[in-house]
Amino acid sequence: MRTMTAAVFTKPGSIVLEQKPVPIVGPGDALIRITTTTICGTDIHILKGEYPVKPGLIIGHEPVGVIDELGDGVTGYKVGQRVIVGAITPCGQCYHCLDGHKAQCGGKPMGGWRFGNSIDGCQAEYLLVPNAQANLSLIPDGLTDEQVLMCPDIMSTGFGGAEAGQINIGDTVVVFAQGPIGLCATAGAKLKGATRIIVVDTVPARMEVAKRMGADIVIDYKLVDPVDEILRITQGRGVDVAIEALGTQETFESCLRVLKPGGVLSSLGVYSGKLTMPLDAIASGLGDIKIITTLCPGGKERMRRLLNVVASGRVDLNPLVTHRFGLNQIEEAYELFANQRDGVLKIAITP
Amino acid sequence: MRTMTAAVFTKPGSIVLEQKPVPIVGPGDALIRITTTTICGTDIHILKGEYPVKPGLIIGHEPVGVIDELGDGVTGYKVGQRVIVGAITPCGQCYHCLDGHKAQCGGKPMGGWRFGNSIDGCQAEYLLVPNAQANLSLIPDGLTDEQVLMCPDIMSTGFGGAEAGQINIGDTVVVFAQGPIGLCATAGAKLKGATRIIVVDTVPARMEVAKRMGADIVIDYKLVDPVDEILRITQGRGVDVAIEALGTQETFESCLRVLKPGGVLSSLGVYSGKLTMPLDAIASGLGDIKIITTLCPGGKERMRRLLNVVASGRVDLNPLVTHRFGLNQIEEAYELFANQRDGVLKIAITP
Amino acid sequence: MRTMTAAVFTKPGSIVLEQKPVPIVGPGDALIRITTTTICGTDIHILKGEYPVKPGLIIGHEPVGVIDELGDGVTGYKVGQRVIVGAITPCGQCYHCLDGHKAQCGGKPMGGWRFGNSIDGCQAEYLLVPNAQANLSLIPDGLTDEQVLMCPDIMSTGFGGAEAGQINIGDTVVVFAQGPIGLCATAGAKLKGATRIIVVDTVPARMEVAKRMGADIVIDYKLVDPVDEILRITQGRGVDVAIEALGTQETFESCLRVLKPGGVLSSLGVYSGKLTMPLDAIASGLGDIKIITTLCPGGKERMRRLLNVVASGRVDLNPLVTHRFGLNQIEEAYELFANQRDGVLKIAITP
Amino acid sequence: MRTMTAAVFTKPGSIVLEQKPVPIVGPGDALIRITTTTICGTDIHILKGEYPVKPGLIIGHEPVGVIDELGDGVTGYKVGQRVIVGAITPCGQCYHCLDGHKAQCGGKPMGGWRFGNSIDGCQAEYLLVPNAQANLSLIPDGLTDEQVLMCPDIMSTGFGGAEAGQINIGDTVVVFAQGPIGLCATAGAKLKGATRIIVVDTVPARMEVAKRMGADIVIDYKLVDPVDEILRITQGRGVDVAIEALGTQETFESCLRVLKPGGVLSSLGVYSGKLTMPLDAIASGLGDIKIITTLCPGGKERMRRLLNVVASGRVDLNPLVTHRFGLNQIEEAYELFANQRDGVLKIAITP
Repeated sequence: MRTMTAAVFTKPGSIVLEQKPVPIVGPGDALIRITTTTICGTDIHILKGEYPVKPGLIIGHEPVGVIDELGDGVTGYKVGQRVIVGAITPCGQCYHCLDGHKAQCGGKPMGGWRFGNSIDGCQAEYLLVPNAQANLSLIPDGLTDEQVLMCPDIMSTGFGGAEAGQINIGDTVVVFAQGPIGLCATAGAKLKGATRIIVVDTVPARMEVAKRMGADIVIDYKLVDPVDEILRITQGRGVDVAIEALGTQETFESCLRVLKPGGVLSSLGVYSGKLTMPLDAIASGLGDIKIITTLCPGGKERMRRLLNVVASGRVDLNPLVTHRFGLNQIEEAYELFANQRDGVLKIAITP
Repeated sequence: MRTMTAAVFTKPGSIVLEQKPVPIVGPGDALIRITTTTICGTDIHILKGEYPVKPGLIIGHEPVGVIDELGDGVTGYKVGQRVIVGAITPCGQCYHCLDGHKAQCGGKPMGGWRFGNSIDGCQAEYLLVPNAQANLSLIPDGLTDEQVLMCPDIMSTGFGGAEAGQINIGDTVVVFAQGPIGLCATAGAKLKGATRIIVVDTVPARMEVAKRMGADIVIDYKLVDPVDEILRITQGRGVDVAIEALGTQETFESCLRVLKPGGVLSSLGVYSGKLTMPLDAIASGLGDIKIITTLCPGGKERMRRLLNVVASGRVDLNPLVTHRFGLNQIEEAYELFANQRDGVLKIAITP
Repeated sequence: MRTMTAAVFTKPGSIVLEQKPVPIVGPGDALIRITTTTICGTDIHILKGEYPVKPGLIIGHEPVGVIDELGDGVTGYKVGQRVIVGAITPCGQCYHCLDGHKAQCGGKPMGGWRFGNSIDGCQAEYLLVPNAQANLSLIPDGLTDEQVLMCPDIMSTGFGGAEAGQINIGDTVVVFAQGPIGLCATAGAKLKGATRIIVVDTVPARMEVAKRMGADIVIDYKLVDPVDEILRITQGRGVDVAIEALGTQETFESCLRVLKPGGVLSSLGVYSGKLTMPLDAIASGLGDIKIITTLCPGGKERMRRLLNVVASGRVDLNPLVTHRFGLNQIEEAYELFANQRDGVLKIAITP
Repeated sequence: MRTMTAAVFTKPGSIVLEQKPVPIVGPGDALIRITTTTICGTDIHILKGEYPVKPGLIIGHEPVGVIDELGDGVTGYKVGQRVIVGAITPCGQCYHCLDGHKAQCGGKPMGGWRFGNSIDGCQAEYLLVPNAQANLSLIPDGLTDEQVLMCPDIMSTGFGGAEAGQINIGDTVVVFAQGPIGLCATAGAKLKGATRIIVVDTVPARMEVAKRMGADIVIDYKLVDPVDEILRITQGRGVDVAIEALGTQETFESCLRVLKPGGVLSSLGVYSGKLTMPLDAIASGLGDIKIITTLCPGGKERMRRLLNVVASGRVDLNPLVTHRFGLNQIEEAYELFANQRDGVLKIAITP
């Protein structure tokens, strides 16, 4: 039995390197040799035991790699091709997928997010991809691993938040929090036609990258009250679209308070505990508003579109990769990322 | 100076009949002689002092009447024509209206709901209609006042809740609470193609009318837990669309708990106090859901469409009118309606 | 080798019964024993040689049957279950499917319509279903074969035409031609909230069934000019939505001429030759109109929704089945259907 | 009576300068002193007698100016403010406007395009604006007349074509013809998230400006067949969205031939004569396509959004102004523009 190195969740507080068997390929599967991957904020929730994952599972859901083996039922691909796979792996054939809710593939309780959640993930030398026909996306020639590393999750989610916001030409959009997903939401808002993008954060390095992603106005919430400032900037009218990219009561509530009547609150953050909507925040209950939560859209067509964006040069997400580690140093990378030291945004992990 | 009888809010706890001057008609206005009107649940909030209305204001926002006088600038109408006017009176010419958010006409803080809120209302012998060009809708021949009495608010709001739900052919829809707005939401859900409509209430008379409006399954929440029952009926899948038509934490939360991943919660209720979203109710934060709040859509085109529905016979809302009073008995009518006695749904008030 | 009876296209003008091998089941396939099927207008185009189908192909794309055998990769189904399969069989896993265009599965030149077009069809004792995971829909208990016989094509297409029309509450809709698809479009328009439905045809039997499907006004184009009459009925305003269900220059052009500015022309007909848009018909080129062509939506989720409609009793399509033949009499059935004798709408074929 | 200089259509072939009375301001009107305007391709159709305009009418529908006088009913504006007015002037209060079809204001036969069509236009010293409340848009400080000169028509139409195309992130879009409207469609497509924009023209100056507007690939239709080339570039898949910006049979048909199944043809051109859809061009009649015609969206909210785009610097339309003439030289300007000499795109006319 071939074995491989992999980052395994063993118990709350512990993700460690272990030797695991290289997966066996079934008819509809593909085996990918991972060339680059990264750590997500969600992985830190798992590490801390805040998210229910079974001990023994390989973590990671942002794979870039090379096709190593293909199941008999997978057509149109060849061993050796460079591919990415979305964090969400829709089957394309269940009721949820055929109903257009691909991220909800398979329904409750797990939905379509499988890697590093309900099946082994990609912080390893190899990754087994189920429903490979629907989930392998060829990397265009000339793009590096790091250029496409955001596509499987961060970029798909952040752009999804901008798309869910139903941005119109000439809109004013605010994005609360400029972590990796918030930065992608900023880039997505620009790509969808917003002409005034306000972002709220306080970390200097993030606020700097935000400008490169398209932010027109940067608010440091430690210096000014963002709600007051946004209402002042918009002459009391409020923003057309508010994107929440952190997952706290405070940012969610601030989104409601700066939203115009008739506006859209696009929620990307993963909240913990209860979330409260103060009624005075939603225009006396008369707000005609939409609150839309988005989970990372997946599937090869989604990835194809995001790869198009990268290849076109319209958006350059390279500034998000701030650190690089080998897979054998991943425990160290987790320590750095969990503590958000050294201005870290995303860490490229290479076996 | 001509005077007229009108129901006036004088202080919390008190709506009384007074003599008020008949309004003077400006260039863009119309004066309507009221032939029938009704009392809304919102009027009870005003009566109780829960909604900020200035003492001295005439209450009421559901007018049916006859054109008595037209401003110089209003064209295409004639004195003597029977009309309704929506509870929301968009001007059609401000940024909000031109942006498609007609219920938000004029923006914060008051929006487009003016009658009995920021200007005198229609529980009176006469009503002054601003922006009359955009707001007078001719009643088709052959329809009685009572047949069209729901159009200005209850039907527009309830149907608006069904429309906001983005119902697809073959959907399962639940409507929580079967008061007048909830009953109209039920009728609207049927009209939009839902093929299984579940309603939740406990008042026998309401549950009976619900069946006439299109309910396929009626759940009495005092006999069974509606969340458990709805999940059982849908084999754990949840409903496609959940409509909240009461305005309590419990019904809002139940809507979230029975909603399928990817579903729409259409919220019509007017909540008091804070509203909490328990995270375990929204599929571990991964639900891909939409929460849409709707305020009664207005304007003459909206009313024209609702009048079409009534004229077509597709929906019969007559069962909603359970009581009839003269305007001079309106204090008595308020007492009955505020205490929800005698199976009251809506009361027709005629001067 | 097991053989079966099947209706085979042999050359233009000839569809005949032959003995063919019962298909071999691959890993992703299902074998269905056909219990009822029918003949489509498209089959007549094939018969006449107007549609490019290879000689030797089994015809038919409207299957109702029982699962006879399942490939190893198909889960969640059992032999013996009653199922329908849509005329369009999306794989769910190609770029087109994942992009939401399931009817275009596989792309040009063939798209997602395979049965009786690019692979063997269902006018036979058995049918091999590819991508079975995405395409088998269980028939709810209590529904007969004939009750669900319209779902695979006629109902899905006709309802799809109503859905593409983006019908709003209170709309006026016209449907040109009341053959089986037009009749389903009429039923679909009613189900989507149209309150005045005008239909145009001349065959008495069809006009009679149209009323049962929801038509409010029936125009016999041999007695009055439908364009003049529709403009008269709508006071010159035109209809909100026009549905073309025949496929001729005249009906297409009439749709344009009765459409309101800003309206939608939903085109279902299969045209032959060129189609011309006279500019005077589209409001001097300034019409802000949408022309949308719809191909029968497929997949098991689509079929599930249509089966819901049938099971709910909201729509009763039984009047469409006017004749019944055995599979061994299918040549006779073709002769009757091709010549549209005896008021035929749809013929149930049972092996 | 005050008089003013104005460009008047007197008969086919003749637009000449005349003295006309300065308009009288009614209660809902505004009088604008024109500071800059321009000539549209549609004006050339009028000049040639191809478009039915009454002799004696002042031409022009692209006004930039200063408020000179306000009717009593117009609020929120002051004399002396710099404004633009859209080419389409919706009233906001008729059925069409309230139904969301503002460009169709007033319905057939004239719709919402009034200036230089059914009422006097802006190629004059003064312009009377009806429904001024809905149609005056303040020019942000710091923007020159030429910077906002495209907003009233060219930019609104071109961007409208991109919006009607329902462009998704990562789409491939083709724009046929790169005149002023086509160039704005190109800029709009980029603003809406297209990542590969193909344009087709042959005039070197236009192809050069196209690149500055966002074109990634420029096809000279005199050198290569654009249909073949586009299908080659897209590996036979076709484009997601095709925008027609010329108004000829050839470009319309080419759009159909390069469109993917499920794609959108957004039509902006003004066609003359009949328009033919060859069936072989729409995927054997099975294409699931949308053809959407767009007329210049108007109203102050639309203009506000376009002014936001200009003020943000996201799009720079200055390269479109290639020539400048005084109003007293406008006959010369017409001659230049009608003959498309000297690489003319748009001519700024200043009184």
